[in-house]
Amino acid sequence: MGFSTIHLSEDGWSVDILDQTLLPHEFKTVRLTTMAEAAVSIRDMLVRGAPLIGATAAYGMALAMRQDPSDANLQDAYDRLLETRPTAVNLRWALDDMKAVLKNCAEADRESAAYDRAAHVVLEDNSICFGIGEHGLKLIRDIYQKKGGNAPVNILTHCNAGALATCGLGTATAPIYLAKIDHIPVHVWVDETRPRNQGAALTAWELGRSGIEHSLITDNTGGHLMQHGMVDMCIVGTDRTTASGDVCNKIGTYLKALAAHDNGVPFYVALPSTTIDWTVNDGVKEIPIEERAGEEVTQVRGLTADGTIQTVTVPPVTTCAANYAFDVTPARLVTGLITERGVAPATRDGLKSMFPEQA
Amino acid sequence: MGFSTIHLSEDGWSVDILDQTLLPHEFKTVRLTTMAEAAVSIRDMLVRGAPLIGATAAYGMALAMRQDPSDANLQDAYDRLLETRPTAVNLRWALDDMKAVLKNCAEADRESAAYDRAAHVVLEDNSICFGIGEHGLKLIRDIYQKKGGNAPVNILTHCNAGALATCGLGTATAPIYLAKIDHIPVHVWVDETRPRNQGAALTAWELGRSGIEHSLITDNTGGHLMQHGMVDMCIVGTDRTTASGDVCNKIGTYLKALAAHDNGVPFYVALPSTTIDWTVNDGVKEIPIEERAGEEVTQVRGLTADGTIQTVTVPPVTTCAANYAFDVTPARLVTGLITERGVAPATRDGLKSMFPEQA
Repeated sequence: MGFSTIHLSEDGWSVDILDQTLLPHEFKTVRLTTMAEAAVSIRDMLVRGAPLIGATAAYGMALAMRQDPSDANLQDAYDRLLETRPTAVNLRWALDDMKAVLKNCAEADRESAAYDRAAHVVLEDNSICFGIGEHGLKLIRDIYQKKGGNAPVNILTHCNAGALATCGLGTATAPIYLAKIDHIPVHVWVDETRPRNQGAALTAWELGRSGIEHSLITDNTGGHLMQHGMVDMCIVGTDRTTASGDVCNKIGTYLKALAAHDNGVPFYVALPSTTIDWTVNDGVKEIPIEERAGEEVTQVRGLTADGTIQTVTVPPVTTCAANYAFDVTPARLVTGLITERGVAPATRDGLKSMFPEQA
Repeated sequence: MGFSTIHLSEDGWSVDILDQTLLPHEFKTVRLTTMAEAAVSIRDMLVRGAPLIGATAAYGMALAMRQDPSDANLQDAYDRLLETRPTAVNLRWALDDMKAVLKNCAEADRESAAYDRAAHVVLEDNSICFGIGEHGLKLIRDIYQKKGGNAPVNILTHCNAGALATCGLGTATAPIYLAKIDHIPVHVWVDETRPRNQGAALTAWELGRSGIEHSLITDNTGGHLMQHGMVDMCIVGTDRTTASGDVCNKIGTYLKALAAHDNGVPFYVALPSTTIDWTVNDGVKEIPIEERAGEEVTQVRGLTADGTIQTVTVPPVTTCAANYAFDVTPARLVTGLITERGVAPATRDGLKSMFPEQA
């Protein structure tokens, strides 16, 4: 894809990450050499996206063990990394996993065990993305063939469920990257995804970097495109999926699902099965939606003509904004859930039969 | 409302307009003293909104007659004003009306006749807005009473179908302004309305100026609000309405109508009956949708922290955007059309019975 979100540097122990706060206007790799630097990179969102945060924390533990493999430092590193993004489920999961492995090692073995386990976290995420990609690719190929095999498949996506959020091909983007490798022509409609513009700033960047045809659109546009046959399928990510198949994802996802349903366009959600919350049934009623600062709506950051990054306020400076970060798309609007094991119907039974161990 | 979009200045002949290109960050009145200045104010969008463009053109004709009431100048003013915004239906309508009146006048009477007729254009628009407001007010009052008469009515609107687009209370905003006068508490959810941000820049400004409670939201947010009972009704404007009740309005309107329908929220469209196109039946199939420059999507204008107006590019500078300006909301999603004569069902029969002269 022409970039890597995280990898061991050539010295074999320090960790190179892509500084995503500078995207899309600057491409810069930052080298992490201490646990403290790893913690800052998570806290200040140089890395973002649940799987990538987990991987960075895992390498943060490895850097800590390299400095001092004592029990005290193991606990200290765990605590300091965990507090960087307290609500990130993957962060806690990765740290618990690392701690469990390292606790059982002699101090002398901890550095090596930590690097091995961190590499495992990255490889596993890569593998999950690839699995999602292969199952989603079949859906794209089917549509390509149904269209006669001579026209690009038009795919609409929302936000960034992309390679930038993971250690691999991304989730919603994985089938798209594999389609390109498979020489299936695709064209992606990229929702800009207000208020934080992850579509405009991140998805457009990574698709461009990877040579995938795409067009940026406002979040208002998808309905019109679907009415006119200009979208063959939607693929989006999810932050949390209920046991009944409701999908909590970036605000605005629900509106696109409604339009897809109204126009007979298949609406798929790509997800690692780890984002299924088996304890929640009714997404609209049960999932609390985070409200964030209004300034994310009123202020926009970008590049000026003279090449500097500036933040501008669009409405009157006294205007107050309400900023709900996510919405819930009811399962009835979801054509299928693309997981690493296959495409499940967005129903309790569909999910249970694909993940019988959870039933 | 605390502002006037257009009015005769105190000298009785020059025309004061609000320079809307500076909104929301600067409030400045510009004085038009010649036909050429009126033409520039339309072309450069100091005035915008179909009714207001018509009124400005009418006063442009009056200024032309003041300078030179000859037949040649009458035709020249007509031509030069018409070419400022070639696709604006109201502009042609207002100019045809002015020309028809002035042709029948002796040259000596033309200046006075032109000012009278221009004043008539303004008064008529004002009256149409007021009629829409009164009929819409009944709908707001009904909801207020159904809610028990002690909680604000939450109204969602898209784009700016506001006082700023007219010579009066606006179209979608007219019922809201009258509700305030009637002491019915209202709170307006203002869609920012990407890509041109008319909601953030204009609707938020005029509601704030008029003391109407409101919250700015991204265009992605309405569906979530409706799922959670936080929207009592939607009122939007329209650029063109078909004989069957389909509504062509700012891109994204369709998505809000889908969400309203999915959640049982009434979805109203406010319109002067002049925007009904009796020759068109199927809006989605028959109305061509304007594509505009991609830069409207990629670039955002606003106020920097140091008080200057700047334009910033949000996605990678190489990213291409597709920019469809309008979409069509099928009549089946529209609860009612609020016209100056009353609220019509969005059906052929509903419109015919309210406007029998068009049948």
